Amino acid sequence: MTALEQMGQQAKTASRKLLGLQQSRNAALLAIAEALREQQGNILTANEQDLQQARQNGMSQSLMDRLTLTPERIEGMAKGVEQIAMQKDPIGTVVEGGQLTNGLKIEKVRVPLGVIGIIYEARPNVTADAAALCLKAGNVVILRGGKEAFQSNQCITNIMRYAIASEGLPADCIQLVQDTSRESAREMMALTGYLDVLIPRGGAGLIRSVVENSRVPVIETGAGNCHVYVDESADLAMAADIIFNAKTTRPSVCNAIETILVHEKVAEKALPRIAEKLGEKNVRLHGCERTCAVLPQAIPATEQDWATEYLDFELAVRVVPSITEAMEHIATYSTGHSECIVTENFRNAQLFTAQVDSAVVYVNASTRFTDGGEFGMGAEIGISTQKLHARGPMGVEQLTSTKFIIQGDGQVR
Amino acid sequence: MTALEQMGQQAKTASRKLLGLQQSRNAALLAIAEALREQQGNILTANEQDLQQARQNGMSQSLMDRLTLTPERIEGMAKGVEQIAMQKDPIGTVVEGGQLTNGLKIEKVRVPLGVIGIIYEARPNVTADAAALCLKAGNVVILRGGKEAFQSNQCITNIMRYAIASEGLPADCIQLVQDTSRESAREMMALTGYLDVLIPRGGAGLIRSVVENSRVPVIETGAGNCHVYVDESADLAMAADIIFNAKTTRPSVCNAIETILVHEKVAEKALPRIAEKLGEKNVRLHGCERTCAVLPQAIPATEQDWATEYLDFELAVRVVPSITEAMEHIATYSTGHSECIVTENFRNAQLFTAQVDSAVVYVNASTRFTDGGEFGMGAEIGISTQKLHARGPMGVEQLTSTKFIIQGDGQVR
Repeated sequence: MTALEQMGQQAKTASRKLLGLQQSRNAALLAIAEALREQQGNILTANEQDLQQARQNGMSQSLMDRLTLTPERIEGMAKGVEQIAMQKDPIGTVVEGGQLTNGLKIEKVRVPLGVIGIIYEARPNVTADAAALCLKAGNVVILRGGKEAFQSNQCITNIMRYAIASEGLPADCIQLVQDTSRESAREMMALTGYLDVLIPRGGAGLIRSVVENSRVPVIETGAGNCHVYVDESADLAMAADIIFNAKTTRPSVCNAIETILVHEKVAEKALPRIAEKLGEKNVRLHGCERTCAVLPQAIPATEQDWATEYLDFELAVRVVPSITEAMEHIATYSTGHSECIVTENFRNAQLFTAQVDSAVVYVNASTRFTDGGEFGMGAEIGISTQKLHARGPMGVEQLTSTKFIIQGDGQVR
Repeated sequence: MTALEQMGQQAKTASRKLLGLQQSRNAALLAIAEALREQQGNILTANEQDLQQARQNGMSQSLMDRLTLTPERIEGMAKGVEQIAMQKDPIGTVVEGGQLTNGLKIEKVRVPLGVIGIIYEARPNVTADAAALCLKAGNVVILRGGKEAFQSNQCITNIMRYAIASEGLPADCIQLVQDTSRESAREMMALTGYLDVLIPRGGAGLIRSVVENSRVPVIETGAGNCHVYVDESADLAMAADIIFNAKTTRPSVCNAIETILVHEKVAEKALPRIAEKLGEKNVRLHGCERTCAVLPQAIPATEQDWATEYLDFELAVRVVPSITEAMEHIATYSTGHSECIVTENFRNAQLFTAQVDSAVVYVNASTRFTDGGEFGMGAEIGISTQKLHARGPMGVEQLTSTKFIIQGDGQVR
């Protein structure tokens, strides 16, 4: 039995024990938050070891920034865990129920998924966040973080294990994979006997690799090639505001837009207005031929641009002859995350929301709202872009399954 | 581009067209039912070709039986499709909805999954049944049946394609893979760009192979190593009735039981009673040591017996010292389908339903009720034993996804 299989077995055992300890989950979460605050010094020391190693290896500044913990960030982690504790407990909710004609009482009840594997990269705050979300939904978690953050992750995990054990929960509800080689990630993807689901959190490369190679069911989160379509009937000031907001408030996140599509009838009026607004943040524009004719500052776009998630102050722009062509473009290039139509036309709003096949479809609002917090779901583990299980922001409830409980008095069929 | 990729592309196109033709789905289903009846002669002729081939290849009698179509079976197929047409349409249902404090109107709406692949074996009736269920939920389907039933499947598919086209739907909403080699199944499992989900229907070997090898998300259905636990407080007459019903009414199906666990305090009284009842159907018993001491006719059970789905008039029997040991046994050997406790004790009923981690958990009722029709869900495509997406009977609603539709008047974040 490999080390990972042993972890899997421990996780299974912990998962079954946890089913009998439902009342203790929230107290355990609060204990985690308190312990993270108390042990701040130890976390910073462990993090400093990771940072030293990173400096020696010449890690880039942006990666170093993700890796770095500060007293404020640790306080943020603790607050995050407390907020998760305060959310509604999904477990035990009767989703549907009733009585069959033969007298059987039937209930569909929300239950934990079981054992969740999380594969992530160099952000140690994911360790506390993911563990807390899993635990809130009654799940046990096996964490496999990046090697760059190993000391930090190890320290945070140990603090959490100790904290939950103090509330009577099995420490093995939270485990950290010790081997941070690629091999251990691959082994996790094959751990079908122990893992109920695997969730990759990180860049597009990591997610693709897990989706393509995992035999454990995966929840795909993340990639967002999001679009705004400016309809011929659009309020152009509103269009410019939405585009500006959706592109520039936080270009590195998945709900930021990457391409805008503008109806040809309004292109000449709309494009300069949009470009002027985006100019405030020096957004680089990649335009189709017709866009470049209106906006000389635009760089000619290539086929590649339509499929690119810039995640930066860059935007592709295409003039389209109709809403149908706009929807065609989205169907071809979108990753199925979030799309928006800006329109004053009722039929077009109906058509766009009915036929655009993405997790979230907006009329006259910024795609930046695609977020568990904004949707009133509390903390989220990511935005699911797949159609099975959960689609859109994945909060605590999306980390559960259901089962049927049927009570009779001797019914046979 | 391979033939299958081309099918995938056609399916994608049909899927998008179907989104705009929601009103025609039911008429198309009724047209299928009518066409199946009208073309009965052609279906029987095609089926006869498959049967001749099967006879030449020396196919077993039980497989021949599954392959054989009769006027009655074709009428059954047509009736099945009509019943699916009569079910409630899940598409467009608002699952949740409300208004956010910023004035955004948010709705979570039921939408089709998209393109569903079905891999099945030698039962031509699955062709009509699976296609109708997929279409009812607004999905497009790519069918890949066994080579033994190819002529029948081809004929039924063509009839369905013609029928739905007569109602204005793209014929490519229903496609049959022409290549029935193992290679085509493997290729389907890798068709991630076109298939949203893959559902294997058939024996345990087929399902395991698809679950282990598919890169397309899979819904795992089927295997049922189901248990009845006879608690020390059980009404023993009721226990014998439930066990008799759950084992003998249709032993070849997945909701039939394969092992019973009997509390040691009632074993001496219960076992002869249960054995007598099962004797009416000559059920072979495989017993643990303590069982064999009470029932000399029982064959000594091996470790292998606890994990076996007999799917026949055979049953494993184990005496357990406690409900905890019973639940331990179930956790070790169950496939997570359906389990039952027979008890008069309230606490034990609570404990068993809370802690047994299967799709359906019964108190004092036969596991044979695990069925879409019995649950009031209408026709089903199988019983899901996985925890993601759908668990338990998968009807039309379980063949859908959701998306969020958000309407604003210019909100930005």
